[in-house]
Amino acid sequence: VSSEPGAGAPASASAAHGGDGAALAERLRAGDRRALARALTRIEDGAEPELRDLVARLHPFTGHAQLVGVTGPPGVGKSTLTSALVRWWRQRDATVGVVAVDPTSPFTGGALLGDRIRMQDHILDRGVFIRSMATRGHLGGLSWATPQALLVMDAAGFDVVVLETVGVGQAEVEVAGVADTTVVAVAPDMGDAVQAAKAGILEAADVFVVNKADREGAGRTVRELRDSQRLGHGPWMPPIVSTVASRGEGIDELAAAIADHRAWLAADDRLRARRLHRARVHVRELAVAALRSRMGAVAEGVALDAVAGQVVDLELDPYAAADTLVAALGG
Amino acid sequence: VSSEPGAGAPASASAAHGGDGAALAERLRAGDRRALARALTRIEDGAEPELRDLVARLHPFTGHAQLVGVTGPPGVGKSTLTSALVRWWRQRDATVGVVAVDPTSPFTGGALLGDRIRMQDHILDRGVFIRSMATRGHLGGLSWATPQALLVMDAAGFDVVVLETVGVGQAEVEVAGVADTTVVAVAPDMGDAVQAAKAGILEAADVFVVNKADREGAGRTVRELRDSQRLGHGPWMPPIVSTVASRGEGIDELAAAIADHRAWLAADDRLRARRLHRARVHVRELAVAALRSRMGAVAEGVALDAVAGQVVDLELDPYAAADTLVAALGG
Repeated sequence: VSSEPGAGAPASASAAHGGDGAALAERLRAGDRRALARALTRIEDGAEPELRDLVARLHPFTGHAQLVGVTGPPGVGKSTLTSALVRWWRQRDATVGVVAVDPTSPFTGGALLGDRIRMQDHILDRGVFIRSMATRGHLGGLSWATPQALLVMDAAGFDVVVLETVGVGQAEVEVAGVADTTVVAVAPDMGDAVQAAKAGILEAADVFVVNKADREGAGRTVRELRDSQRLGHGPWMPPIVSTVASRGEGIDELAAAIADHRAWLAADDRLRARRLHRARVHVRELAVAALRSRMGAVAEGVALDAVAGQVVDLELDPYAAADTLVAALGG
Repeated sequence: VSSEPGAGAPASASAAHGGDGAALAERLRAGDRRALARALTRIEDGAEPELRDLVARLHPFTGHAQLVGVTGPPGVGKSTLTSALVRWWRQRDATVGVVAVDPTSPFTGGALLGDRIRMQDHILDRGVFIRSMATRGHLGGLSWATPQALLVMDAAGFDVVVLETVGVGQAEVEVAGVADTTVVAVAPDMGDAVQAAKAGILEAADVFVVNKADREGAGRTVRELRDSQRLGHGPWMPPIVSTVASRGEGIDELAAAIADHRAWLAADDRLRARRLHRARVHVRELAVAALRSRMGAVAEGVALDAVAGQVVDLELDPYAAADTLVAALGG
């Protein structure tokens, strides 16, 4: 049995196996947090065809939430920032959902748990829902799971949905970039600004945060970011906000910067362009998953065994063998 | 221009653009280290069609090297272990190539550089070649690049090729598992044994190392590993070796355990079974890359834009949109 999430299941299979989908979708939309948690677990599991059924049921009820991505290297204080933002929005009566995606489970599970504990401030608040998700080691699992999770949270009716990711590479940055507004956090004297520039994170940012701004080197980090912006930016000039999230300093400014970007997006169909981008990423990843799943079926069969044998016997090189497989898929 | 490595380029394009392939392959096989370095850079870049041409030229000269995977969580001392093993093999006149694959560049680049500095012991030894590779943020880049790198190192004529990976998840463990012999390293009191068990690392191990065995808790870690083995193992019972790699302690035993596993593999066609597995992984990843590349072409076109628009307008759910895309590929 393949553990690869795939889009290849026919609709009839959904009807047969996803019999509780209607009830789950209804409870989720009515604010039942256990139903929401169950839906997110389905995404982690990549369980077809139940997930396909659920997504089809929830998708018509999306489009309300403001989606905010928070990314940056490990240790920069992303969870503290997120927690402070959550508090800010709750004081203004907005409901908030948080999805923290961990690309490197299970070995960083411990650290992530520590982050979550810091968010216990909100544990008794019914207007907040926080969930960290692991992607169970699927290659490409992050880009596959993230748009699914945002869709489910959006359909659950939150006013704001925060997507927190560890920005360790370009792939993770792309994932964070599916939000309406992407906040990129760095800290002083970690060489973060330079590293972020190399990783292409700067291009993904709608708002920069220099967190732990009470540390030495904060001014220099702000200057480095400003210098990098002189090299060019798009139609939106990302503001640079300094915060000390652990003491709540700078959070008003950060929330205002996020709201400014949102207002800018709302003009001239820019929000729709963002959402088209997100839809493209989502659909493409589902299609690739379907192809991978189909490839898995071929790979389980005799075709792959035969060509792999020829590769080991030095009769066929790996690329030529791959061509044979692709041809076997009817390509 | 897509940055996705793909297998879809026609052979004629290779001939046109890979004109230096013959010379590069010849120099690489003659022991030219700069040619080897250039070939590995091609793999990092995922540059088609040059890479396809080079792989086809080198593949006939593979099969000599003993491939050893070394994996484990961050901080366990993998580079120190590898360095000590390299010294051991060099004292016995075996030439050794090391490929260290870093799945999370660029933010861990600094730590990796530190590891490399520790390997400077070997810098003047022509019988050793050490290279760390980043996969430039390609999703799935690790499983795509690793068999390519092993093929190139094998063709370069090393007696032993070590593949060092950070074992952060199941995907990375699968990658390490393409070696002939996979060494899984843990350290005392990091909760590593338990975490490794959860991550499925235990099943991938041919040899266990408890490194930093002079630390408190080493005995308990060995017992935990032994207990986990009682729950069942395959036809090969992985030995558990205790080392203090920084002082060279236990390296004789570790090298002997690797040699024992190699001798066991050599009997009953087991080595061929391993190599079939590696060929399957390699060919499958190249085929998936080709499909992804083709999907990229569709995704650049009007098909994805059209369905993404319908998704945003809530007329089509993402799975149904993905079905449309897959159908557009002739599937």
